Amino acid sequence: MVHEAGASGKRRGAVGYHRVIASFIRSPEGVPVFEVDGSESPQQVSAQESRISNPLRIAIFGFGTVGSSVARILVESKPQGLELTHVFNRNVARKRVGWVPETVEWSEDASAVLASDVDVVVELAGGLDPAGAWVRKALDAGKSVVTANKKLIAYHGLELERLAAARGGHLKYGAAVAGGIPVIPGLEQGMAGDRIERVEGILNGTCNFILSSMEQGTEYATVLATAQAKGYAEADPTEDVGGFDARAKLAILMRLALRVEIDPEEIAPRPITAVSAVDFSYARDLGCTIRQVARADYSAGQVAATVGPMLVDIHSPLAWSRGTENMVILTGHYGGDVVFSGHGAGGHPTAVAVVSDLMALAHGSRRVGIPAVPARVGAEFEVPHYIRFIVADKPGIIADITVALAKEGINIRAIVQKTGYPQRALPFVMTVEPCKSSALKRALECLRGKDYLIEEPLDLQMLE
Amino acid sequence: MVHEAGASGKRRGAVGYHRVIASFIRSPEGVPVFEVDGSESPQQVSAQESRISNPLRIAIFGFGTVGSSVARILVESKPQGLELTHVFNRNVARKRVGWVPETVEWSEDASAVLASDVDVVVELAGGLDPAGAWVRKALDAGKSVVTANKKLIAYHGLELERLAAARGGHLKYGAAVAGGIPVIPGLEQGMAGDRIERVEGILNGTCNFILSSMEQGTEYATVLATAQAKGYAEADPTEDVGGFDARAKLAILMRLALRVEIDPEEIAPRPITAVSAVDFSYARDLGCTIRQVARADYSAGQVAATVGPMLVDIHSPLAWSRGTENMVILTGHYGGDVVFSGHGAGGHPTAVAVVSDLMALAHGSRRVGIPAVPARVGAEFEVPHYIRFIVADKPGIIADITVALAKEGINIRAIVQKTGYPQRALPFVMTVEPCKSSALKRALECLRGKDYLIEEPLDLQMLE
Repeated sequence: MVHEAGASGKRRGAVGYHRVIASFIRSPEGVPVFEVDGSESPQQVSAQESRISNPLRIAIFGFGTVGSSVARILVESKPQGLELTHVFNRNVARKRVGWVPETVEWSEDASAVLASDVDVVVELAGGLDPAGAWVRKALDAGKSVVTANKKLIAYHGLELERLAAARGGHLKYGAAVAGGIPVIPGLEQGMAGDRIERVEGILNGTCNFILSSMEQGTEYATVLATAQAKGYAEADPTEDVGGFDARAKLAILMRLALRVEIDPEEIAPRPITAVSAVDFSYARDLGCTIRQVARADYSAGQVAATVGPMLVDIHSPLAWSRGTENMVILTGHYGGDVVFSGHGAGGHPTAVAVVSDLMALAHGSRRVGIPAVPARVGAEFEVPHYIRFIVADKPGIIADITVALAKEGINIRAIVQKTGYPQRALPFVMTVEPCKSSALKRALECLRGKDYLIEEPLDLQMLE
Repeated sequence: MVHEAGASGKRRGAVGYHRVIASFIRSPEGVPVFEVDGSESPQQVSAQESRISNPLRIAIFGFGTVGSSVARILVESKPQGLELTHVFNRNVARKRVGWVPETVEWSEDASAVLASDVDVVVELAGGLDPAGAWVRKALDAGKSVVTANKKLIAYHGLELERLAAARGGHLKYGAAVAGGIPVIPGLEQGMAGDRIERVEGILNGTCNFILSSMEQGTEYATVLATAQAKGYAEADPTEDVGGFDARAKLAILMRLALRVEIDPEEIAPRPITAVSAVDFSYARDLGCTIRQVARADYSAGQVAATVGPMLVDIHSPLAWSRGTENMVILTGHYGGDVVFSGHGAGGHPTAVAVVSDLMALAHGSRRVGIPAVPARVGAEFEVPHYIRFIVADKPGIIADITVALAKEGINIRAIVQKTGYPQRALPFVMTVEPCKSSALKRALECLRGKDYLIEEPLDLQMLE
């Protein structure tokens, strides 16, 4: 038998339900927080009744997919302590929707909204400018800011956090990495006690959609067109396929997980466009598939980070991610691997992260801010590699390549050459035992300009 | 090139490193919190320098595997704002270790430690008694409590939270569910904005070790002995294999995710001991494996929950969990599925959760406490089922069974009978299309006492 749950649910004797008198007070930092009044006797109380005054007044900047999802959740779920009061957008008239309460002010005057009595600015416009200026202005006025803007946080997060702290506001950006997956709050609130040594993630849904579709045999151009039609990819997909979007997110995770403050530009991303159908075919033969992976290590005082297509074991968590899913694996010194996965982007999942940040502000939750140390980023990893050559076949090629690798002390693990390709542009693959990225780079430099190379060799890290 | 990261790392011009003057103040609730002094000009400051006064004084109750791991992390990592001052254990002399600072007081007098000036009691003794009494006493004195005690929280969490709120302390239990995986903080701080409709999880590492080993062909008794030898299973494994441990954790997740306050005793767990090698063999033929799953749904005002062995698709996240790993899948109305996985138990992973809770307290982070409504728990799910019969073979058995199922409107999906078993105790399996648990129960009741049944049929939910 299933019984109805709800306010009318039968009370059980075993657990008493106490009335919680909740009200907002202003914390020393100026943000209203929940205060629970426990002065009434437990017998008189029920969890149903509560009283909230002075909810946080919220302005949404940018009423696109995410902004309208945030408004939708605020209107539908009515989280206690939050009141949507303003929506800012350029040409706001075309954005206006009927399901938002009439009390909400629609505006195309950013300065006026920033000068108003809103408590929190939800910045969803994206990009460094003018979003950055709005965020600074809001924080400078002592308001709090919730944002999904990975670029702004990756490049200016530290400066903005300092500004927030100095002016008594708060800056929250749980939606900036992996959207609906609570990696940032999980990391800050639940893993602060560990020392995270490695971050690996599938941080860009567009690339994951493209690569996991190519895995099924579809060509890049076709998949990209589908992704664009579905709204997963921009008309100019460079930010995604070039690895720049994932790089910004990785920089944020590095600050929170590895506790290093880095310049994102020091991470050189490699585009997924270098990967072709033949690589998926060879990868499959090696028990692998290909994903865009963002990874960073911090050990013995050395920080290394990279973003690009990599071979991942078909049985590994990273291979589980399909479509636009995101995944983050954090490796702690004490706790080992923790895996998070889910919908990294999209209006609703990202909006959940934004609204959760707003609720945390309303409840007086504070970030567990661990100071990060400034660090330079290297690109040195010691992992096995996949190297794909396309050659005009002639005798002595393998000998030539293996000599170049041997000079750098690189051991070959396997040489795979599948039939069915033309002699004039023959792909074959070598995999090598774990070697330093720099050693492999030098070996491949030695081969540059060889007359048998139809294309530059493609070397991909293999994650084990 | 990789550069050294650390205090001596080269400063980059692009980002200024400001000095943060951090000090502890007492919040209105009496817990020291971080306060950032932003009065100094940003130019003078560096993230390296900080000053902390009045760290939280911590007493560990229970110096077993987890307790000593907590002490180890506190001693090794020295998180700012935390100071281990007391260790309580029965016969504490045999527990004393040399690597703990000499200032720490070792005691076997619980009352004396509770009466001391400690700010936070870390309760790691487990069980309802005397742990519950210690926790109540600590909270009653206005101290905060961090605990990994799932049973105490499942049965008395609400009462203890109320007590904490009334006395100005805080109760945190991030380690009570899935140990080192930040499900509770992720859920509270990062998914509060969603409306979670379903919880599915592998919440007991012992059962997962046993079932994932049986999947490889080992018999139950052998695996249990191995688990006991490795310290994964108790001498009396009932709490784990009977589903009681997972039930307590599910009850906690139901409160935080589904926001229903339930009596854990209303969830009837089914033991994994009913599963045998033949079930794994049939499951494999059906593209599945078997896991102990704890699941709960909340839709249309109806709450349903159950714990027990279930068939899971071999390609589903739940099948990924091997060994003692835990996994939790939360399905949100807005955000869809979010998956968390990692090490659910063990000294170090659990200690990470405890220390993270302590750090959150030190930083003034507050729980995003959403009120839960009282609810009764049903066990009605509408899912496909696997039914395994062991019969003394004779004509008409299938006809008899199919009539009983048809009477309840249950459609058969497949009948599988493998060769190689004796006629006198022949196992065969039926799978049925999604049907209500209650309907299947009635159909199986009709078959009770049939002379061809060598054992009671085993019916398992199939998760899709």
